[in-house]
Formats: sequence, structure tokens, C-alpha cells
Amino acid sequence: MSITTVGLDADDTLWHNETIFRLTHDRFVGLLADHADRAMVEAQLAGTEARNLRLYGYGVKGFTLSMIETAMELTGGEAPASVIREILAAGREMLAHPVETLPGVDEALAALSERYRLVLITKGDLLDQERKLAASGLGDLFAAVEIVSEKDRSTYERVFGRHGTGADQAVMAGNSMKSDVLPALEAGAFAVHIPYAVTWAHELADAPEGHDRCGTLDGIADLPEWIAARS
Amino acid sequence: MSITTVGLDADDTLWHNETIFRLTHDRFVGLLADHADRAMVEAQLAGTEARNLRLYGYGVKGFTLSMIETAMELTGGEAPASVIREILAAGREMLAHPVETLPGVDEALAALSERYRLVLITKGDLLDQERKLAASGLGDLFAAVEIVSEKDRSTYERVFGRHGTGADQAVMAGNSMKSDVLPALEAGAFAVHIPYAVTWAHELADAPEGHDRCGTLDGIADLPEWIAARS
Repeated sequence: MSITTVGLDADDTLWHNETIFRLTHDRFVGLLADHADRAMVEAQLAGTEARNLRLYGYGVKGFTLSMIETAMELTGGEAPASVIREILAAGREMLAHPVETLPGVDEALAALSERYRLVLITKGDLLDQERKLAASGLGDLFAAVEIVSEKDRSTYERVFGRHGTGADQAVMAGNSMKSDVLPALEAGAFAVHIPYAVTWAHELADAPEGHDRCGTLDGIADLPEWIAARS
Repeated sequence: MSITTVGLDADDTLWHNETIFRLTHDRFVGLLADHADRAMVEAQLAGTEARNLRLYGYGVKGFTLSMIETAMELTGGEAPASVIREILAAGREMLAHPVETLPGVDEALAALSERYRLVLITKGDLLDQERKLAASGLGDLFAAVEIVSEKDRSTYERVFGRHGTGADQAVMAGNSMKSDVLPALEAGAFAVHIPYAVTWAHELADAPEGHDRCGTLDGIADLPEWIAARS
């Protein structure tokens, strides 16, 4: 059994993302400080996001709409115009935010791309993810880019079937146990969890126990060695 | 030279879309009737959309954000809360709107899928386009679905290269001269313009003159015959 294909998550695996969302959360909490405390704002926003996920999917645009909706709810429908304008500006700033790759990413991907087919597999807004990949300078290292609306078992079967030699000869690496690791294992792939400092509540899940195709690494710098030991 | 692959646009080619946007436009004009007349609202919204296109890309979520921004501008930053809530609701309703296929689509696609590889090529929000395809009941007829952030020459070269036998053995059919016809011809494909009753201003362009790989049809029902005559 040899590994031919490496799938990589993007946000919080290749570059910072959740920290930017957290900064916007903080700004949002500040905007509504006259109406609710942090815990209440966070809880209401999380509820709005969860409710809208089915319609909006993942990404900055849906998050911005959910912030506006939450602001209306927390102010009894009387959010000041300045708050709405600030939220719109915060959303646009997220979409224009510079891309900062995580430590070790450039070297790890350069090494991996010499031996394996690299496939970027990410959720989020289509245009925004394309922009971030272009800005990261990593685009040329990938044989394929798949921006998907959901990451489940069938997603990995399809993507590794189309761009590689099937899930059983592929590794998926990412920061989300729920989206990157568990469904890739279900599809029959290897999976490597590389935790990020902050995880969106929606992406939390327990690690599988004693799974021989699954590993956890402190950073992406260790990924080439992990894969080489299994190829 | 035989045709192996047929690319099809989705919105306003397979199902109604622009009419739903127009209904939402009308609703938006009504919401702001106290502040500006129709022409002014339309002009301001078009300007906001054009300015945001680079960040938001295509689709309902960006359109909703642009409506909110326009409402703030037209009310001098004093849009009533009820207006913001109505805009959010209008956006969600668009995302949940039933899909109504255009006349002749089911029969034409069933016939085409027996002889050619069908590829759906569309812009818009990822999740929303997937939802509409699922709701249309047409999903199984397509060999591949490509939801893209922009439709230009390189898009068609890439998609017809990946899912077919190259652009020169492919036909692209759609309602937009600018997005479906002209760039597909540039890529070396055949292209068929099937006008829809309403066209978004952003998608307007002149037809090419005397191009032997280009045609115009009144409806998609005529597409199988048009392609058969060139296969």
C-alpha cells in the first residue's frame, strides 16, 4: 500500500483564519456592549450561525449576515446604523485580510509536492478561498483545488477518487477533527490531526481511539516524515 | 471533429433565477420608497454590487449584503430596523426559493446525456447552487459539476480539459453572452446562446458576428439538434 495523494485543509492548517474570526467576534462584542455582555452576544451569535448554516453554508459572507441578524435581535430591532455599517466594514476587512501562512507550511508543502499529488480541500466562500490561496503563494504546489460545501465521507471518496488513486492511498491533514480527520478515516484514507490554537465550536469532536491510520502532529513540519513512514 | 462534451450554465439556462432577483429588487425598491425613487435605488444598488463584486463574488449572500449597504447609503445611515430585517428575510427567501426548471430542460438534458458528457458550469454561492441542482432533479444527468468564481477563457479550457476531451470537442450553452458564449469561443469551444427573458446588466455583451462555431437558439429544446448537426 503506497500513499500517492495528500489532501490538505486550508483555514487554520495552511494559514491563520480562526484568529481573524475571533478578532471580529471581539469587535462585534464591543459594538453591542451597551446592549448585552460578551457571553450573551457570543451565545446569540453562535445560535444564529447554527440556524443559518443550512442556508448560508460556511464563509465570511454568511458570518457577516449572521452578525447583522444577531445585532438586530440583541437590540430589539433597534441596532444603530453605525453598528450595521461597522459590521459590513468588518466583513469586508475579513475578505481583504492579508494571508499569513503558518510556521513550516512552505517547507512542508514544497517537500510533499515532490513525492505526492497535493489536493487542497476546503470549505468556505469560493472566491475568498481562491483569493487566499493565490495570496499564499502556494497555489502552484497543488495538483487540484476542491472548495466544497461540506466535508463528509462521500466528499473524500469523491475527491481522492477524482484527483488521486482512491482514498485508501491518500492522507488527509487538517486542524479539524470533525471535518478533516473523522470523515477521511471513514472514507478509508489516512488522516492526520494538526491542531490549531483556536477551534471554532462547530468543528470540535473527540479523537478516535487506537486507529492505526490516524495520527496527531504538533505542526505541519512533521507531516512529510509521518507520511514517509507509511508509504 | 466530434463533440464529446456539453457544458451547461445553470441560472436562467436550466431554471429561473433572474426573475427571482427582480422580484427581490422590486421588494427592495418598495422598502426604500420613502427615501428614493426606483431609478435612484436601482442605480445605487447596481453601483454597490459592482464595487463589491471583487470581494463578494456572485450569489445571493453578496447580493443581500449589497442591499443592506445600499439601504444604509440611501437613508443617510438611518435605515429603520424593519428595513434591515426585511432585507435579511428577502435574502433567506431567495436561498430557500423553489427551483422551477425552464420549459424543455428535462427532455433536452435527458436526450443530450445519452450521447454526450454533460458538465454543469455555473457561478454563484457554492451551497446555493448545489441546493438548486439537487432540487431540480437534474443532478444525475451530469458527469461533473463545476461551481466557479469567474467564467473566462481559462475556466473553459480547464473544465473541458478535466471533464471532457478538450474545449475544441465541447459545446457551451447558456443565457449569458458575456459569461457563457464569448469566453467559451475564445477557449476554442462551440457556444450556443439561449437568451432568457431578463438579463442582469452585468452579463450583457454584444454577439460575435459571423462566427462559425457560435449559434443562438430560442430555447434549450433545440439544443440537441443543433449539436447533432455539428457532431
